Amino acid sequence: MITKDDIRVAAQRIAPYIRTTPVIQLEAGWFDVPGDTFLKLESLQVTGSFKPRGAFNRLLSEPIPPAGIIAASGGNHGIAVAYAAQKLGVRAEIYVPSLATALKRKMLTDLGAQVVVAGNTYVEALAASEARAAESGALNVHAFDNAATVAGQGTIAIELDAQLPDIDTVLVSVGGGGFIGGIAAWFSGRVKVVAVEPKNCPTLNRALQARVPVDVETGGIAADSLGCRRIGKVPFSVLLPAVSDSVLVSDEQIRDAQRVLWEKLRIGSEPGGATAFAALVSGAYVRSPGEKIAVVICGGNADPASFA
Amino acid sequence: MITKDDIRVAAQRIAPYIRTTPVIQLEAGWFDVPGDTFLKLESLQVTGSFKPRGAFNRLLSEPIPPAGIIAASGGNHGIAVAYAAQKLGVRAEIYVPSLATALKRKMLTDLGAQVVVAGNTYVEALAASEARAAESGALNVHAFDNAATVAGQGTIAIELDAQLPDIDTVLVSVGGGGFIGGIAAWFSGRVKVVAVEPKNCPTLNRALQARVPVDVETGGIAADSLGCRRIGKVPFSVLLPAVSDSVLVSDEQIRDAQRVLWEKLRIGSEPGGATAFAALVSGAYVRSPGEKIAVVICGGNADPASFA
Ligand SMILES: Cc1ncc(COP(=O)(O)O)c(C=O)c1O
Ligand SMILES: Cc1ncc(COP(=O)(O)O)c(C=O)c1O
Repeated sequence: MITKDDIRVAAQRIAPYIRTTPVIQLEAGWFDVPGDTFLKLESLQVTGSFKPRGAFNRLLSEPIPPAGIIAASGGNHGIAVAYAAQKLGVRAEIYVPSLATALKRKMLTDLGAQVVVAGNTYVEALAASEARAAESGALNVHAFDNAATVAGQGTIAIELDAQLPDIDTVLVSVGGGGFIGGIAAWFSGRVKVVAVEPKNCPTLNRALQARVPVDVETGGIAADSLGCRRIGKVPFSVLLPAVSDSVLVSDEQIRDAQRVLWEKLRIGSEPGGATAFAALVSGAYVRSPGEKIAVVICGGNADPASFA
Repeated sequence: MITKDDIRVAAQRIAPYIRTTPVIQLEAGWFDVPGDTFLKLESLQVTGSFKPRGAFNRLLSEPIPPAGIIAASGGNHGIAVAYAAQKLGVRAEIYVPSLATALKRKMLTDLGAQVVVAGNTYVEALAASEARAAESGALNVHAFDNAATVAGQGTIAIELDAQLPDIDTVLVSVGGGGFIGGIAAWFSGRVKVVAVEPKNCPTLNRALQARVPVDVETGGIAADSLGCRRIGKVPFSVLLPAVSDSVLVSDEQIRDAQRVLWEKLRIGSEPGGATAFAALVSGAYVRSPGEKIAVVICGGNADPASFA
């Protein structure tokens, strides 16, 4: 279980390292169905995604072995772990699958992490990182299936609550479920939490249908951040009762949302960062009249050519 | 004279149309000399620059003739006027010099304005727009040399004051001086106002040396927003006593600042929008230890290829 107190403690612990990210409100007339719409710009978080929230909370709540830390990641989690390691003065080795974008690999090496390309998918990189951790004694920092990490991600919801005390609904993208798990744990039913995934990565969607984590195929333009074969056990225990609505969007709708974010708002986003917004822009999420919605723009680590 | 009350009234008048733009704080270690640094992200304002503040205040404080409005602009002012005209249901004709970027011209036509390309520089476009206004009876909405416009731009300083009540210094870029004039009028000596201009567009710098507005040659990468032959009379009367420091930066330093804004912060900016930040990144502005500085990132209307 992840409690509200776990999330409160996490927020205090990570505060020196984390930015409170801004919220902007869209003007009336953006959508056919009326209702206030807010974007939480977590793409302006340090390292360009929300991931340092969970990474710092994990690293600050356990002893770090002399061998340092290891993580497997398609990008943003690894970047966050490398950044946290740098700030905390710890060695970091990051295992990335070949699908990690060139930009994200460069961000990792710029942060002083040792980067190992292992396998074609996140699952393969994870297996390789676990073997290596067993051998070296380093701490393996999982991207989502850990209570401290999920509690860290939940700190974004504390901020949202303070910034927008009366929203009805929050739209969140899902990979392994750590992010939405932390948010759902904080709101615990008080705010409707809507999961948005690419049609090409329906990891939570299928698990909610089956009512247990199941394996799914993943691919498409957001796979480097949202492509996760099986939803995490720790987040799923929170999500099964808490997620009101699970929405799928196409890669084209995601690309469209990225373009709208840039063209109309001058917000740079990566595919996984624009996925939740795509549900609104495309109409895949059907809003009730007057519904007050917050959308988390959760990552900006893209080559600008992709949203130009 | 532009008083604090003029700016307060402007803020109320334009509130329904304008976004309160966010501020983010940079982490310790960004610069050699220690001191808190904040960025005010006015690039996230509606239309991608601060210009609607002045445009709305002007249009809401005078009767609009049936022939509508005319403006001359290298881009952002015209876009703001076209946007305001659309919201207020007024006809808009925008005269642009050939140096206006393709992107900005497209934004103008997308907003339903009639776009006329007239001359190679802002001064030539302005002359043509004035001739046309005399003929048609339309209201000519000057880009900076008007008290209502300057008061409108000053509303950003009210926001800054509420967001950061104890800054020492604000760094602001300058074209015709309306923006910095409004900011200086609000702070009236309480906060140090530093003017930053491209070496290629030293309009205020030369005027401060001469102690009167003088003609300067302008060019370089920020000319479409900051290239103004002569500082405005209305803003100069505020600026001569108020501007503590006038700093010049090279085009290369501006491009560098644009890249840093994207690579380290995922903030998209245009050259004129990154010019004030360039003074800090390049060291052209020499900070005192502990000096608490706000930098306005005042425009984001660029092709992302230019900052990638
Ligand atoms: C930008 C972005 N959004 C969303 C997610 C999904 O987070 P989670 O795996 O915790 O569901 C990730 C994960 O890497 C991400 O990088
Ligand atoms: C992005 C940007 N910054 C700064 C300025 C300068 O404003 P002013 O002409 O009022 O000095 C402009 C003017 O167009 C602009 O577009």
